[in-house]
Amino acid sequence: MKNKLLVVGTMAYDAIETPFGQVDKILGGAATYISLSASRFSLDCGIVSVVGEDFESQHLSLLKERGIDLSGVEIVAGGKTFFWSGKYHNDLNTRTTLDTQLNVLQDFNPKIPEHLKSPDIIMLGNLSPDVQLQALGQLKTKPKLVVLDTMNFWMEHFRPALGRVIEKVDVISINDEEARQLTGEYSLVKAADQIHKMGPKYVIIKKGEHGALLFHDNEIFCAPALPLEEVFDPTGAGDSFAGGFSGYLTQTGDISFDNMKSAIIYGSAMASFTVEKFGTKNLVDFSPTSMAERLKAFKELTTFEIEIE
Amino acid sequence: MKNKLLVVGTMAYDAIETPFGQVDKILGGAATYISLSASRFSLDCGIVSVVGEDFESQHLSLLKERGIDLSGVEIVAGGKTFFWSGKYHNDLNTRTTLDTQLNVLQDFNPKIPEHLKSPDIIMLGNLSPDVQLQALGQLKTKPKLVVLDTMNFWMEHFRPALGRVIEKVDVISINDEEARQLTGEYSLVKAADQIHKMGPKYVIIKKGEHGALLFHDNEIFCAPALPLEEVFDPTGAGDSFAGGFSGYLTQTGDISFDNMKSAIIYGSAMASFTVEKFGTKNLVDFSPTSMAERLKAFKELTTFEIEIE
Repeated sequence: MKNKLLVVGTMAYDAIETPFGQVDKILGGAATYISLSASRFSLDCGIVSVVGEDFESQHLSLLKERGIDLSGVEIVAGGKTFFWSGKYHNDLNTRTTLDTQLNVLQDFNPKIPEHLKSPDIIMLGNLSPDVQLQALGQLKTKPKLVVLDTMNFWMEHFRPALGRVIEKVDVISINDEEARQLTGEYSLVKAADQIHKMGPKYVIIKKGEHGALLFHDNEIFCAPALPLEEVFDPTGAGDSFAGGFSGYLTQTGDISFDNMKSAIIYGSAMASFTVEKFGTKNLVDFSPTSMAERLKAFKELTTFEIEIE
Repeated sequence: MKNKLLVVGTMAYDAIETPFGQVDKILGGAATYISLSASRFSLDCGIVSVVGEDFESQHLSLLKERGIDLSGVEIVAGGKTFFWSGKYHNDLNTRTTLDTQLNVLQDFNPKIPEHLKSPDIIMLGNLSPDVQLQALGQLKTKPKLVVLDTMNFWMEHFRPALGRVIEKVDVISINDEEARQLTGEYSLVKAADQIHKMGPKYVIIKKGEHGALLFHDNEIFCAPALPLEEVFDPTGAGDSFAGGFSGYLTQTGDISFDNMKSAIIYGSAMASFTVEKFGTKNLVDFSPTSMAERLKAFKELTTFEIEIE
């Protein structure tokens, strides 16, 4: 029997402009990237999300073909799918949101199907904290691990609700600026300390091209990002990371700190694939061989010998 | 017989303001930090530099007590020592130079004493490229390794001379912004490629709190910076790094890529000590025990297990 991963998050259409080109309508959304990334592992993965009537059947098929259970994806008759549009600046590290149309996401009440209510791991993708709380409240059994991804928008405008989610999760995944914003601490070590006190035993701080840090008690793990010749489109990098992280942990069923370190590397490898092409393209296309090569690259990138006297 | 390291660089007095306090006159300069850092290793280290009559004997003694050969340090009668004053902003990642008084550095013509003219490794600290070229021209034998540290100021105003230095060195150490400035490439992988073509077989790109990258042919090594609770004063971090890097390579006499990776870790450990106190204080004071602990921390920070199929 395979372990179960439940993903709660958005499904969307994105319009993206980068220095390398632009697309008007491309498959996107946190749950999409997370589940496509997680489906690379041996597990049973289900999504709880919402789309409009305009959501294309080819995109539902794409996910189904990867073995992803879509019975928790509500299709709102007459509704329009969540739409996001953004433009990346020349350095690709900063972006401007041009348009956000919540559409069916506006009144989304997640409904977890009965057979998905006892996951081994639940991955709460970036979404309204109220929706995340509702989803957590519908679980029948306590998962082995609750993982949360969130962002600055919820910190600024929905802090009380976000606080109630944060106190319920085991792992939080945010970027360095968000960790500073959430805690008022500039030092990431101090910020992680503060976040531990809010609830999460594990704190992942993502640093984009500089990799990611994992904090647990007094232990720290530092994963590099793979230095790439070219980053084409950073959209979905964090979600692909979250999918690789939660997917690997679900497959192995081992939530020790040591195994989380490996999970971070898998997550980083997934993110490195995603950013090489527009949208989900490379996440869908990359081969198992290139995965093995990339893991080897991470190993070579970080291995050194030191004799400690 | 110990291997020989020759350091060419500035000796200075600094006035520094950080969010944690300020000092009006403190020992500084690239050659000072580099040699204090390198003197932690088993080697013969000499400095070529210049100071004014105001340079305090207690500071000469400090260096001499660490076994550093000061016979190449010119003391200009009636002259004043190079003075730099800077203020760090709240995030400690950016600083404003408040004052630069070149003083005796203005007309500095380096004179390498005969017994220092055949070093195993020469470390050219951040300084005018013309001075660096003069020093290289005085060597009697080709060193095993020539290491260069430089900065944006020389790229902007002394590019032709800097180019002539760069084509003569084996290793260049600059930060990420400088690598981008020097090459016009945003991707650090592409920037390193360009710099390889300018001469250096090894390119070190320093990223402050995000660690450092070492590029050689198609190999890359990524070293983390040690996540610290508090950075007190970043002055001299890059020089301490350069001292640890060149000091370890001099001690071991092994300039393979694998040994350079270890050298980068030693350099990073040195930098982590320096930034914990004002100026050179912690670089002088830290104990061998704390060095071993810090190296262990670097190992724990980066070690992970992945089975590659």
